[in-house]
Amino acid sequence: MALIRSWVESANSPTTEFPLNNLPCGVFSTEETEPRPGVAIGDRIVDIARLEEEGIITPEGGTVFDVPFWNDFMELGEDAWAAFRAQLTALLTEGSSDRERIEPMLIPMANARLHMPFAVSEYTDFYAGYHHATNVGTMFRGAENALPPNWLHMPIGYNGRASSVVVSGTDIRRPMGQLKGADDDRPYFAASGKFDIELEMGAVLGGASDGPVSVAEADKMIFGYVLLNDWSARDIQAWEYQPLGPFQSKATATSISPWIVTRAALEPFRADTPPRIHPLLDYIRDDGPMLYDIDLTVAIQPEGAGHETVLARTNHRELYYSSAQQIAHHASSGCPMNCGDLIGSGTISGPLRENRGSLLELSWGGKEPVEIGNGMSRSFIEDGDRLTLRGGASGDGYRIGFGECTGKVLPAR
Amino acid sequence: MALIRSWVESANSPTTEFPLNNLPCGVFSTEETEPRPGVAIGDRIVDIARLEEEGIITPEGGTVFDVPFWNDFMELGEDAWAAFRAQLTALLTEGSSDRERIEPMLIPMANARLHMPFAVSEYTDFYAGYHHATNVGTMFRGAENALPPNWLHMPIGYNGRASSVVVSGTDIRRPMGQLKGADDDRPYFAASGKFDIELEMGAVLGGASDGPVSVAEADKMIFGYVLLNDWSARDIQAWEYQPLGPFQSKATATSISPWIVTRAALEPFRADTPPRIHPLLDYIRDDGPMLYDIDLTVAIQPEGAGHETVLARTNHRELYYSSAQQIAHHASSGCPMNCGDLIGSGTISGPLRENRGSLLELSWGGKEPVEIGNGMSRSFIEDGDRLTLRGGASGDGYRIGFGECTGKVLPAR
Repeated sequence: MALIRSWVESANSPTTEFPLNNLPCGVFSTEETEPRPGVAIGDRIVDIARLEEEGIITPEGGTVFDVPFWNDFMELGEDAWAAFRAQLTALLTEGSSDRERIEPMLIPMANARLHMPFAVSEYTDFYAGYHHATNVGTMFRGAENALPPNWLHMPIGYNGRASSVVVSGTDIRRPMGQLKGADDDRPYFAASGKFDIELEMGAVLGGASDGPVSVAEADKMIFGYVLLNDWSARDIQAWEYQPLGPFQSKATATSISPWIVTRAALEPFRADTPPRIHPLLDYIRDDGPMLYDIDLTVAIQPEGAGHETVLARTNHRELYYSSAQQIAHHASSGCPMNCGDLIGSGTISGPLRENRGSLLELSWGGKEPVEIGNGMSRSFIEDGDRLTLRGGASGDGYRIGFGECTGKVLPAR
Repeated sequence: MALIRSWVESANSPTTEFPLNNLPCGVFSTEETEPRPGVAIGDRIVDIARLEEEGIITPEGGTVFDVPFWNDFMELGEDAWAAFRAQLTALLTEGSSDRERIEPMLIPMANARLHMPFAVSEYTDFYAGYHHATNVGTMFRGAENALPPNWLHMPIGYNGRASSVVVSGTDIRRPMGQLKGADDDRPYFAASGKFDIELEMGAVLGGASDGPVSVAEADKMIFGYVLLNDWSARDIQAWEYQPLGPFQSKATATSISPWIVTRAALEPFRADTPPRIHPLLDYIRDDGPMLYDIDLTVAIQPEGAGHETVLARTNHRELYYSSAQQIAHHASSGCPMNCGDLIGSGTISGPLRENRGSLLELSWGGKEPVEIGNGMSRSFIEDGDRLTLRGGASGDGYRIGFGECTGKVLPAR
């Protein structure tokens, strides 16, 4: 697919993340306005709340953009999403007769502050990266028992904490927690010394269900995707996670990108899941390509450093289970799924060392610290470090991006 | 403490669960009215929405009872809760001059349908019953390794699924799920054959936090308590729970009682936690009695049976960690806690066989089926069975109850 040219000149640049093909959904404020829905186009944001106020955009189902989140619009469903995208594309296309009317409703992105794009109903995090699960399993249980017996048969996941999800740019406070090393007689309460990133993507649900759904139905429930950093305290996790799974180790914060890239924008980049090692059961069997060719990076910039260093490069295609498969599994027990649910993919690592999406893997549990330039190295995150995820899908002369997903780690309280 | 007599005669009966000392919070509807907040008194419900409409009750902070849940009121905080309780007590006390004005705002409970009393923000379930954890651990790992090493040092918990919480009376559909027995070559997808109850209580948060809180602060965040049945599919759980904990095995439904009994009503019944086997770290150390002398039962009634059979009797005092300790641990990582959060206690078993709060324990994993009368026995729940939790605290000539927490199990879809 080729670039769709817009009368917003900056949207036609081959380096922008926000060409007319993208139209991602965010929430912004300026000195003059409270947080409200907006769509990124080049270096501008279309003030969607104002378009609705002016009667230019009138979703069926009533007013949905007078709130500081996209949930009310997401609830309208697939047909409304498609109609909105088609109308916005027409308004912004090069040569559109609407230019004069719309141009005053564009805000320079440089003047805007970005907020959480949606209200998170519930947050579930999966563990669906084959290389990540293999790496972590090898470290903890040895290469022969790396993958748990269930791993190749179902997407393993756990419920996370929706209240901990924050938008890119939010500072992250290093957590306190209960720790106990192998040589300690008893546990103690202290700041985590093994604070880590997890490079993930998150699916944002627009549709809801009140009973089992097929993989194809689950795919249609997805409104869009975000970048997601599942900050993880490895030492808290090691002591707490048996027998009921990760809890406080994952509860401090989960950062997401400020822009939801819609499923519609990503359609041209669909990719298949990897070959199956065991056939999957019918209820989660593959039903078409439901991963995406989205390249992903994570970079680190220590406090005071003049530049950042890329830690890893990977791709959404490296996942073993798609978000649709995760949702179909999630709903299989009858668990109701809701608009606003956020489904973390799990850490996306690739086959090579430079593809590893966590410091735990990159430094192999701290045994092989990662060089990050200027004579510095890292086993885990240090105070003052800024970690930044980026990602995008590259078409013919254009690129679809999410904006940065960044956070700076502050010392524990 | 003695009974406070009310001009509502049924509230003075020694057998009612709803004397004036109780004043629990629920949401009800009738043929004439949509769901709205109400308070139980004897065999009546006080229409709190109407009291507010008429200007009789005017919480500081504006209108809070024009919605079908108690969250807006709960958000007002401790002082508002105390003022409301004092005012309602005065209005309903024997001899009150307000009787004529209030009496028309009482609805016969028999004419009302009860709904979810609050909107669940997030749901966390703990594993804080010493006897339950010991029983389950003994079954799965042997008596010498019954308790996980961390268990005596922190309340072990996992995040549950808020969307699955339903009010008492809701039918429960037996879940489908991925199963694999020890002798099976590969997993299959089928109806759970080991569907179970967990007799718990839940703490309902009114207060919020955005960083660590002390145990004393956590206690003050609790608005009240409900009975809670954490329906559990043991066979789904066995195959899925390693390494990230229970997920679909707990996601079908969690039933709660229709009435939130406030912390204020339970004050006279405070009880200490059991003696500590190891001293607890400061951040979760006991700080006064924060359990309650609440006796609890669970009963079963098979389809077509003329009567129910009590399966187990236990008490809230049997917990090793209080809800306040659970919340302090939950917030220790900086995890934000919110009004409307529901904190499950974990299954409450006592030291004897008749005190066991789950069929898993009662039938010892199915090896010792439980006799339930009429020549019937149960290892796990069968289709058509109705399971009912009841609980209460007994004062001098009165009893504080929660209403039933009941659900009938329907065949899998």
